[in-house]
Order: sequence, then C-alpha cells, then structure tokens
Amino acid sequence: MINWRLDLRLLAFIELFIGILMLIPTTLAYRYQEADALRGFLIAYLAIAVFCSTSLILTGKPKTKTMYARDGYLVVTLTWIIATAFSAIPLVASGAYVDYSSAYFEVMSGFTTTSATVLPEIESLPKAILFWRSQTNWLGGMGIVVLFVALLPALGVSGSLLVGAESVGPTKDKLTPKIKNTALILWSIYIGFSFIETLLLLLGGLNLYDAVTVTFSTMAAAGFCVKNSSIGTFGSAYVDIVVTLFMLVSGANFALYYKALSGKLSSVLKDGELRVYLGIWAVVSLLAALKLFTSNTYDTFAQSLRYSTFQTASILTTTGFATANYIHWPAFTQVLLFLLFFIGGSAGSAGGGVKVIRIVALFKMGRAQIKHRIHPRGVFQVRVGQTTFREDLLVSIATFFGVYILTGVVGAVVISLSGADPLTSFSASFLFLGNIGIGFGEVGPAGNFAFLPSWIKWFCSFLMLVGRLELFTVYVLFSKHFWKH
Amino acid sequence: MINWRLDLRLLAFIELFIGILMLIPTTLAYRYQEADALRGFLIAYLAIAVFCSTSLILTGKPKTKTMYARDGYLVVTLTWIIATAFSAIPLVASGAYVDYSSAYFEVMSGFTTTSATVLPEIESLPKAILFWRSQTNWLGGMGIVVLFVALLPALGVSGSLLVGAESVGPTKDKLTPKIKNTALILWSIYIGFSFIETLLLLLGGLNLYDAVTVTFSTMAAAGFCVKNSSIGTFGSAYVDIVVTLFMLVSGANFALYYKALSGKLSSVLKDGELRVYLGIWAVVSLLAALKLFTSNTYDTFAQSLRYSTFQTASILTTTGFATANYIHWPAFTQVLLFLLFFIGGSAGSAGGGVKVIRIVALFKMGRAQIKHRIHPRGVFQVRVGQTTFREDLLVSIATFFGVYILTGVVGAVVISLSGADPLTSFSASFLFLGNIGIGFGEVGPAGNFAFLPSWIKWFCSFLMLVGRLELFTVYVLFSKHFWKH
Ligand SMILES: [K+]
Ligand SMILES: [K+]
Repeated sequence: MINWRLDLRLLAFIELFIGILMLIPTTLAYRYQEADALRGFLIAYLAIAVFCSTSLILTGKPKTKTMYARDGYLVVTLTWIIATAFSAIPLVASGAYVDYSSAYFEVMSGFTTTSATVLPEIESLPKAILFWRSQTNWLGGMGIVVLFVALLPALGVSGSLLVGAESVGPTKDKLTPKIKNTALILWSIYIGFSFIETLLLLLGGLNLYDAVTVTFSTMAAAGFCVKNSSIGTFGSAYVDIVVTLFMLVSGANFALYYKALSGKLSSVLKDGELRVYLGIWAVVSLLAALKLFTSNTYDTFAQSLRYSTFQTASILTTTGFATANYIHWPAFTQVLLFLLFFIGGSAGSAGGGVKVIRIVALFKMGRAQIKHRIHPRGVFQVRVGQTTFREDLLVSIATFFGVYILTGVVGAVVISLSGADPLTSFSASFLFLGNIGIGFGEVGPAGNFAFLPSWIKWFCSFLMLVGRLELFTVYVLFSKHFWKH
Repeated sequence: MINWRLDLRLLAFIELFIGILMLIPTTLAYRYQEADALRGFLIAYLAIAVFCSTSLILTGKPKTKTMYARDGYLVVTLTWIIATAFSAIPLVASGAYVDYSSAYFEVMSGFTTTSATVLPEIESLPKAILFWRSQTNWLGGMGIVVLFVALLPALGVSGSLLVGAESVGPTKDKLTPKIKNTALILWSIYIGFSFIETLLLLLGGLNLYDAVTVTFSTMAAAGFCVKNSSIGTFGSAYVDIVVTLFMLVSGANFALYYKALSGKLSSVLKDGELRVYLGIWAVVSLLAALKLFTSNTYDTFAQSLRYSTFQTASILTTTGFATANYIHWPAFTQVLLFLLFFIGGSAGSAGGGVKVIRIVALFKMGRAQIKHRIHPRGVFQVRVGQTTFREDLLVSIATFFGVYILTGVVGAVVISLSGADPLTSFSASFLFLGNIGIGFGEVGPAGNFAFLPSWIKWFCSFLMLVGRLELFTVYVLFSKHFWKH
C-alpha cells in the first residue's frame, strides 16, 4: 500500500525546506549584485511556491499517518528527483548553464555528491550560483531527507523508513532509540567538522567564500570546487593536507564519531571497517608515491607522497578533488586509483561506492568458501569485527556487489553511444554510479561532461541517483510488485 | 589429510598420458621434416621420462587408495601446472619461442583455452609446433583430468573429486551414476562435434591441417590459430558461419547434448541458461550490426551481421577468434563486446568467464532483494529454470562473482607494472581470468603479449589457471587450513 496523500505532503514540505536553504545563495547574489543569479533564484522560488501550494491544497489532510516500506522508497527517491528539478532552475534561469538538462545533470551531480561537471570553465560563473552548487554537495552528503527528519517534529516510524531508504551501507547503526535524535546527532557532527575545516582553511589563507565552499564539498565527500583546477589551484601543501584529512573524516562511518564522543574510543579503534579503510588508503598512497618518485614524476619523495595521499583519499572516499592531472601519471598509479573505484567509502559515511565493509565481507566470504571446500561438511560463519553476519545479510551484500557491477557495465554501454572511447565510457559509468566524479581517459580531472548528448545526461543523472541511494531504493520502483496492491 | 603418494602417482600417470598425446605433433614434425621441432619433442620426452620414472619409483605402491577433497584440488591444480611445464619444452627447445617463460605462458594459454599469444608472427613457426599449440587448446577445453578419468580404469570416488575440481559452473550435472561414464560421454560428444566441424571446414576448402587446428580451437572455445590474422585470414563467409556455429556449440552446456541425444529435446529447449545464452548472443549481435551498418563500417547490413555475429559469439563463448580488428569499430560496439567479458560461456561448457547461469542467478537475486524490500517479512526464493537455488548456493555464486571481479581488478594493477595503459591492463587482466584471449587497447585482436616482462608472464599464467579452474580450486592451496592436519 502507498499513502499517496501523506507522501505528496511530505514532498511539498521538503521542497519548501529546499527553498529556505536557497535563501543563502540568494543573499549572496544580492550582496555581490549578481542580477542574473538573483533572477534565477527568484524564478526558482516562484516554481517552488506553485508546486508546494498546489500539492498541499490538492492533498488536504491525509486520512492516516501510517507509512509503509514502499512509502519510504517512494518519498526518498522522489525527494531527490524533485529537489534536483527545482534546485536546477537558478542554474539555467541565470543563464549560467546552456540548457535545463545540463543544469539538472549538474545539480544531481551535486546532491548525489558525484560532482561531475558539464562546465569547461568554472570561475567565470556568478559566485552565488557556484555557492549554491557547492551547497548542494553539502546537503546531499549527509542526506537531504535525513536533515529533514532531524529538523521536523517527530515522524515516528515514518522517519525510520525514510532514513533507512536514504542511508548507506549494509548495516544501520542505531545511535539512539529515536530516529530523530540519531539524525540530529549525525548532522551535528557533520556541522561540527565543517566548522573546524572552515577555520583551518581560513588559517591557511583562503578567503571565507573559498573556505566555506571547499568545506562543503570536502565534508560531503563530494568534489565540486569554485576553481578551474580544483584544490590544485591553491597550490598550498597546508591546504592539501587539511583537505586530505577531512576527506578521510568524511569517508569514515559517522557513527564512530558519536561513539568516540561518548567515550568509547577503544571500540572505535578496534572497528574492522575503519582499519581496512585507513589501511587501503595508506598502502595505496605509499605504492603510488614510490612509483611517482621512482618514475621522476615528482622531484622528491615528500612531494610524491603529498600528491599520492591526496589523490588516493580523493578517489577512495569518492570525493573527486584533484591536485594533479593523474591521467599523465605512470600507468601503474592510474590503475591503482582505478582499483579504488571498486571499493569506495565506509558504511554510514558521506562517501559513495560499494563501501569498504562490503568488500571486507566479500573477502571473508571468499575465505569461508575456501574453508568449505577443504572441509565440505563444516559450517563456516563470516565475522566482520565483532559481528557475525547472518546468511541473508551475506546474500544481500554479495547481490549488491553483483548488481552494482552489472549496472556499471550496462551503464558503460549506454554512455558509449555518445561516441566516448571504451576507457572513458567504462570509467564514466562507474564514476557516476560510485558518486566519484572524476575518472580516466576523456573524463579525467581536467575533463568535463559537456560532450554528452542531452538524453545521456539524463541517463547519467539516473546512474548517480541509483548509486547514491544504493541501487535498490530506486530499483524497487521499477518492480511491478511495488505498484500492486 | 593429503594422500601424497597416490597424488604423485596420479600426476606421473597423467604426465605419461600427455607424452603419448605428444606423439601426434611428433609424427607431424617427422613427416614435415622439421628437425628443430623434432628435437624439441624428443627433449620433452626425455624430461617426461625422467619425471615419471623418478616419481613412480619414489612413491612405490600407495598404502591406501582413499582420496580426500584436498587431494582432488591438489592433483587437478598440479596437473595443469606440470602438464604445462612439460608441454612447453618443445616450444622453447625447438627454438620457436625466445625463452621458457614465453613458452610456459603460451602453453598455459593453450591448455586454459585462453589463447593469448606472445607471438607477433605465427605462420613462420614449424607446423608441428603450431599443431601442438592448437592441440593443447583442444585437450584443455573439456579438461585434461576429465579425459584421464574417462580413459583410466575406474577411480571410484577419487574420479568424482578430480572431475569436480576441474569442471566449470556452480551446479554439476550428473549424467550417469558413474563418473567414468559421465566423463566418457562428455568427451565422446566433444570428439563427435569436432569430427563434424572438421568435415564442414574441409568442405569449405580448408586443407586438413588448417581444418583440424581450427576445429581444435573452436570446440575448446579457445582461439589459437595457425594464421596471423586468425579466422579472418580465410576470408570466407562460409567458414565464418561454420566457426560461429561451432563456437556457440562449444559455449553451451555439454550435458544438454547428452539430454538431447537421450530424447529429452523438449527439456533442452526449456533450459533457462541456454535461452539466456543464445538471447544475449542474438541481441548483442543485432545491436552491434545496426551500429556497424549505420556508421558505415561495413557496406551492407548482411556484412555487418556476418562480422558482428562472429565477434559476439567469439567473445561471449570466450573463444577469442577474430575476423575483424574490432578496436577500430565504433566505441559502442567495442563496449558491447566488453560487456560480454563479464558474462562468459555456459556452465559445463568449454567456455570460460563468469558463466551465464551465475549472471542469471545474480539477476534473480537482485529481483528477490527488490521483493524483499517491498515485503520485508516475505521469504523469496530464487528459481533458475525448474530448480530452486538453496541459500548456500546463492552465497557461493555471488561470492564467486565478487572474488572474480576483485581478482581481475587486482590483476590489472599487477599488469600495469609493465607500463601498459589502464584500458590495456584492465582488459588484459579480465581476458586472462575469463580465458578469453583478446581484449582492448594494445591487446586487441592484432596485439600480442610479447611486451610483458617475464615475471608478469608468470603472473598472467597464474591468472589464466585461476580463471580456468574457477578460482577456488587454486585458491584453496593458499589457505593455511589446506596444509593443516
Ligand atoms: K564525488
Ligand atoms: K579463449
């Protein structure tokens, strides 16, 4: 069953909420006297006002407040689709973007924290528009719906359904019995880290505008930047290190920060996923640095390490910032970075991709298969950290991985219809699905997606959404069972 | 427990058996008066004689004839490693190959039916050597150990363990209660089809040598060819069609032919895997043909279809023959072919890769996940054809896929140490693992693997073996549990 009235009402409220958040860039447009941008935002307000009032009037008071699993998937998916639809209006109505499909692609890329861009040139755009673009990163990072649940009066079980459909990873940590409190805690930690990063960047000599926009995209593991050459523009080792650090923060499970703040630091340090996550970062950074140094790509080992730690963190956490155009790096370092495309951030983080814990589980499932072959009558359990994973969870994790890869491969076929070569098509599909934002071939750090035909931009927006909502929240809508009574 | 004496004895017998099979190319070397080749084979015989006599004398009569699961994995893996070691001797001792690592790579590529080659120029080699190279394809296609089991006096339960460790696919069809009879039936069907294909190729104007060697590599879904430009050399639509047909035959489950011969044709036509397998071939061929035609790559639609059906069958069945250098085809057709890298032939076929049935199962597992989200309390079973797959089989299938992809991605990182670009490294790793033999970038149909450093050739030989024996038969040997009492 689907409670259409309640769902539409929720969507209208969330849209209103997006409108309120748009007041920040609108103020900037006013302050910077960017008339085009201001016009863009005003047109967006008009559209939002029409949509919300129509929806609220049409639906009236819902007969029942009961929500079902299906409502959760529907509201979350539609929230992302509709929020993008309205948030894209200022981009195109200000004249900054050439057409609506480009603007939609860009904002979906923002909200899903993919941050693939259609812009060949960024710095010439109105500052208010670029700010809004970065702000979509930040809003999407911890989840639009989660933020809404955190701020709205208690939604009861509906809140859990909504948060469950939007949050990432195979296991959901319950920080508190009440979902509203959990959402509030997660967003508070997120805001707290954002403040600290902004401060550190200001100390590094960035102006407030740059510091805030960079922070937006770092903390969300997102990757938009108001500069043409991404973080490389600042040319500062200090900035590189701060951003590397906060990318790593954003790619870890936020529940761990709550545990650490609650005084359970020792259990945090024992966390299996966190150790593997940091281990992968350390090993890949080191291997890449060795190759960069021995191939004379950089003069010193310290410099090699500076670029490799940054780029490894950027791809592993699925942020997609760049301080170097790594497609000119030696092949080995490129393929190392490509390896990270199949891993991603941690469960419960701002990062995308498959998630470290699923890779760990797959690895352990492989080990269990080996033991089973040696002792065919034995029963072998899969333990990750202190938890034994039930067989249905294992099926769900391994299925996720399989469907993820198959989606990516089919996505590559569709993208290749644009004429993009195999490496470009393949890495593009997986950079959308993993919400990474930069890839290889024509879509490396210096590339952009302006070359895609409109209809492929819409398809890529779909891939980004499917990736951000971890496949099934979107895929359920394509099942006939979903629409059956 | 491992029955070392019995295992070593079996290995010695299998090696003797390889020696006997080598008599065919030796006779050819004598007939064609190829002194270098003859010398190569004689040196190989010497080495085999020393190995076998030493092993048989050292082991004496085994105390017990009991074999355990571990013995099966050990004997099968070692059979492939040692058979390759001795079979590679003629290649290097005849002076045809530059070093032993190249010869080992080539023969492993032959037995595993990968058929990636290190030769930039093929036709100048002694005909006896090329024949032996094609013969390794044919022997590997249905399984060396299976052939041995078929021909040797009953091995009892040991035979089942050996065949189980070598055969491909998640489910094993038991054609007859006795494994020896099953092995005999499979090999008889294989030989029968080989006769028919040879006849048809002779009718197409090929000489006996060409017809037999092409048949060897077609029926094994293998892909070596005695010509520089693979099947394209013959330039005959008739040959293309015959080879396409028999590639499709080799990539289907051989148990189905037994069923058909037993009069159960209707159950064959209802087989879920067969339908999907042929369906993928038909759809991909058609899409590729449309693109080839509309992009003016070929003048007529019929011609486009001739090349697309051939190349699609070649990659899907993991044969790796070529009638066109498809890396010059439009991007879309290339990426379509790349999609097939993630599918492969059928279970119980001569083909490699993931296998169609595992992809079907993954797809249905995805659907079950969707249903589960819509009805969280429901229990959903996965049915493929008429069989309901148990949860432990599903875990094993999905784990296989996950470990397969991760192996391929890590393999790409190792191969990139040769300096190969990302597309070349990535497709090389998966063409080895899937026993496909041709890929993209530098390793397309016109490419070869001479550029790989020796140690990476050994690593690639390992990848081919891991792929052919479906990961776990080899991976178990790396577990400490395997070697514990
Ligand atoms: K990103
Ligand atoms: K092959």
